[in-house]
Amino acid sequence: MYSKAETLELRKKHIGPSCKVFFAKDPIKIVRAHGQYMFDENGEKYLDCINNVAHVGHSHPQVIQAAVKQMELLNTNSRFLHDNLVEYAKRLTATLPEALSVCYFVNSGSEANDLALRLARQYSGHQDVITLDHAYHGHVTSLIDISPYKFNQLGKEAKKEFVHVAPSPDIYRGKYREEHQDPGSAYADDVEKIIEEAQKNGREIAAFIAESMQSCGGQVIPPAGYFQKVAEIVHKAGGVFIADEVQVGFGRVGKHFWAFQLQGEDFVPDIVTMGKPIGNGHPMSCVVTTRQIAEAFGASGLEYFNTFGGNPVSCAIGLAVLDVIEKEDLQGNATNVGNYLTELLKEQQEKHPLVGDVRGVGLFLGVDLVKDRQKRSPATAEAQHIIYKLKEQKILLSADGPYRNILKFKPPMCFSKEDAKFVVDQIDKLLTDLEEATVIGTRNGLSTSTQCKRKVPTEGSSQLDSFSETISHINGSACRQKTGFGSESHTVSCKRIRT
Amino acid sequence: MYSKAETLELRKKHIGPSCKVFFAKDPIKIVRAHGQYMFDENGEKYLDCINNVAHVGHSHPQVIQAAVKQMELLNTNSRFLHDNLVEYAKRLTATLPEALSVCYFVNSGSEANDLALRLARQYSGHQDVITLDHAYHGHVTSLIDISPYKFNQLGKEAKKEFVHVAPSPDIYRGKYREEHQDPGSAYADDVEKIIEEAQKNGREIAAFIAESMQSCGGQVIPPAGYFQKVAEIVHKAGGVFIADEVQVGFGRVGKHFWAFQLQGEDFVPDIVTMGKPIGNGHPMSCVVTTRQIAEAFGASGLEYFNTFGGNPVSCAIGLAVLDVIEKEDLQGNATNVGNYLTELLKEQQEKHPLVGDVRGVGLFLGVDLVKDRQKRSPATAEAQHIIYKLKEQKILLSADGPYRNILKFKPPMCFSKEDAKFVVDQIDKLLTDLEEATVIGTRNGLSTSTQCKRKVPTEGSSQLDSFSETISHINGSACRQKTGFGSESHTVSCKRIRT
Repeated sequence: MYSKAETLELRKKHIGPSCKVFFAKDPIKIVRAHGQYMFDENGEKYLDCINNVAHVGHSHPQVIQAAVKQMELLNTNSRFLHDNLVEYAKRLTATLPEALSVCYFVNSGSEANDLALRLARQYSGHQDVITLDHAYHGHVTSLIDISPYKFNQLGKEAKKEFVHVAPSPDIYRGKYREEHQDPGSAYADDVEKIIEEAQKNGREIAAFIAESMQSCGGQVIPPAGYFQKVAEIVHKAGGVFIADEVQVGFGRVGKHFWAFQLQGEDFVPDIVTMGKPIGNGHPMSCVVTTRQIAEAFGASGLEYFNTFGGNPVSCAIGLAVLDVIEKEDLQGNATNVGNYLTELLKEQQEKHPLVGDVRGVGLFLGVDLVKDRQKRSPATAEAQHIIYKLKEQKILLSADGPYRNILKFKPPMCFSKEDAKFVVDQIDKLLTDLEEATVIGTRNGLSTSTQCKRKVPTEGSSQLDSFSETISHINGSACRQKTGFGSESHTVSCKRIRT
Repeated sequence: MYSKAETLELRKKHIGPSCKVFFAKDPIKIVRAHGQYMFDENGEKYLDCINNVAHVGHSHPQVIQAAVKQMELLNTNSRFLHDNLVEYAKRLTATLPEALSVCYFVNSGSEANDLALRLARQYSGHQDVITLDHAYHGHVTSLIDISPYKFNQLGKEAKKEFVHVAPSPDIYRGKYREEHQDPGSAYADDVEKIIEEAQKNGREIAAFIAESMQSCGGQVIPPAGYFQKVAEIVHKAGGVFIADEVQVGFGRVGKHFWAFQLQGEDFVPDIVTMGKPIGNGHPMSCVVTTRQIAEAFGASGLEYFNTFGGNPVSCAIGLAVLDVIEKEDLQGNATNVGNYLTELLKEQQEKHPLVGDVRGVGLFLGVDLVKDRQKRSPATAEAQHIIYKLKEQKILLSADGPYRNILKFKPPMCFSKEDAKFVVDQIDKLLTDLEEATVIGTRNGLSTSTQCKRKVPTEGSSQLDSFSETISHINGSACRQKTGFGSESHTVSCKRIRT
């Protein structure tokens, strides 16, 4: 319809400037997609390593078919009885521990997390929330409040009194690391101290909320036992445990359907929130909780009505997504391809000093790039460079975490071993180039701590340009604009290492 | 798939008890719908007078076709460039005054109103919000806070300090009525007084928010000049005017595309929020604002990202809805059928003392039932009785307002004159029956102020049963559960007038 330049012009005119595009200097126009591939207006094919929303693959025919069939019959609200609603609730709760039996269908991860807070507050009679450092839980007012990832950008005054920030249980670069004999307990003890401190100030805890694996926070896999211990502590304080599965649920971790299940069968959250992958791109989400909490919420006397939530079309789509995950054994694929990808990345770790850590489960993986393995100093510029160079190779990957130095894999679940090999081969080349540039730089008397170490481009002129922009998130989840897509921010000048 | 009883059983097990069904004692199971008609599991046809979400008619083929076509190509987030996004933004802003040129696409009316508050607060640097009495603006935490319709049910302490409630500009049963020489100014003066009071207490106004016509609040049409005057006062205080068009937008009022335009061309809100009808049932919505406010929001440095908002499928659907409104001249239909329906209802007003007021524009109409025309005492039980009896006649209508005595029409926009005649004929019969019962009751020495005046059923036994339940909202919008769908609440015993 429009040329890329026209599209961009109209976008500047009519879309809020806070809504960023990927690669602001040269954004991508995508016109079609299937499986793990996206195609631009010139028919160029991109490998999608980041889209955890297109969970069972872009434009999956079975999902579309289910949507069409139901759209032709009926799409209305949940005040009428409909089989899709109850069937979907039945199927969804069957994937969860028995106690988690009551659903609320909503339209987005943000609506889900907001409702989770309402449930927790009504049930506990308390107001305060414990959240993890670097956490992002959504874009509505109540969730900006509990997302350090966001409110930290608004200045020191931005943290509300009812919000308590616990350290992220990151055993690679957090407070307690892999050498600690029991990091799970150590991080949980910190939560206990926070509660004691809050209570001393007359405050009471409604909820502890955490992603089952922290996504924006840097692909953090909580140590064993952490959730169990936190749940015990939070329950003792009269609060509830909210597991945010918006980014990581629906079989992405492979061996389990939910990421919180990695902590063991003895851990059951009080509330689970879902989102992104649930409808393969269709706007829908869900909150599941216990009968007890649901009854307490009902006891307030307020009805809960969500106009679009749980409509027959959304539920038909949700059912189709569950069917496809099962039929195509996408959990098996997440395990197989995820293990293979992990192996390949571990080989990179052996080979390249820049790779400090490789972590993750299934098709949710992080590669922590460091300038110095001892100090674990984040290799932010290098990570951004790799992301940008991969884009030139038609590979979509993102870098995230508080220092935006963690390469983050969360592809559609049909991602293949060939795809894995292809992207790691490219990363290998880029890492080799970067390290060679460092050696050259060092030989020329440049410190290894220079922010930017890379070979001078020998051909093409776009390479330097590309570096003047950083990409904090290319992941469809969230991001900090300060160091984000805008070309105005965080430019890394590489001129000084021109040899 | 399931029998109605099984569906109900599964719903009780797996859906939050705060999520109510219509007609709790005998809910309706709908399996298909087209145009303004819905069909239950036995093929029984219902006339839908209430569903303002199925705006261009249930299961509209052109909307479905647009959805399918785009689903087959691509559904992804707005960080990639896409023509549907910019084309839709261009088309949507073309329906609005020129200053309203910047869009944020989100997933629900609640997300839209929450974002509107974030925009207003960031732009103004203030926190406080003025809202109208009986207003409902959505289900997320920040909106429950500014919805007296909801928070009034939670006790006297429930109103937050930053919330200021202005009287609803209802010239039939509000503070200033139709005999007042300038009710618009009088209601606006009240807003001014509220601001002065707030400022005296060191508080500052971020926004005044109001539905362009109050829906849950009782089909209130603000008097001429009210919005202009309020906007002037609010601007002087450094705040912005948010027009909530979630229920009433997209041509429902007939002669205008937006209900706020009824106030005249000299009124332009600073922010407009949209929802329900925008996607004919597809979960989507939008906030439109001025360049100035959008820039101020961007200046905070926070990116705004909404995973599903503005995806190519939602935008394709939005475009199709705009096309159908135009192609089928649904605004013309809203005017013609709306005028005809108003005429028929005015005839009812002539004929039946129970009809106190008939008001509205286009296909957004209210019939205010009163027990006494002088006192305007709300005929709540009668309204509920009519709603229930209409359901037996396979007509879906709702009663709303603070006393739930206002019959509320907001049907799909393809509603016809025949439909209008059919429903008013049924209402005529029911009003006649109710008034005869009153006469009989009075003859038998019963006061006219008895809560329930109706003829004793002469055949069938379901009539009394039906009366033991009240329906506050049957409209897909919101409701107060205390007197809502639950069979546990507000039963009106009619035994005493059995003659």
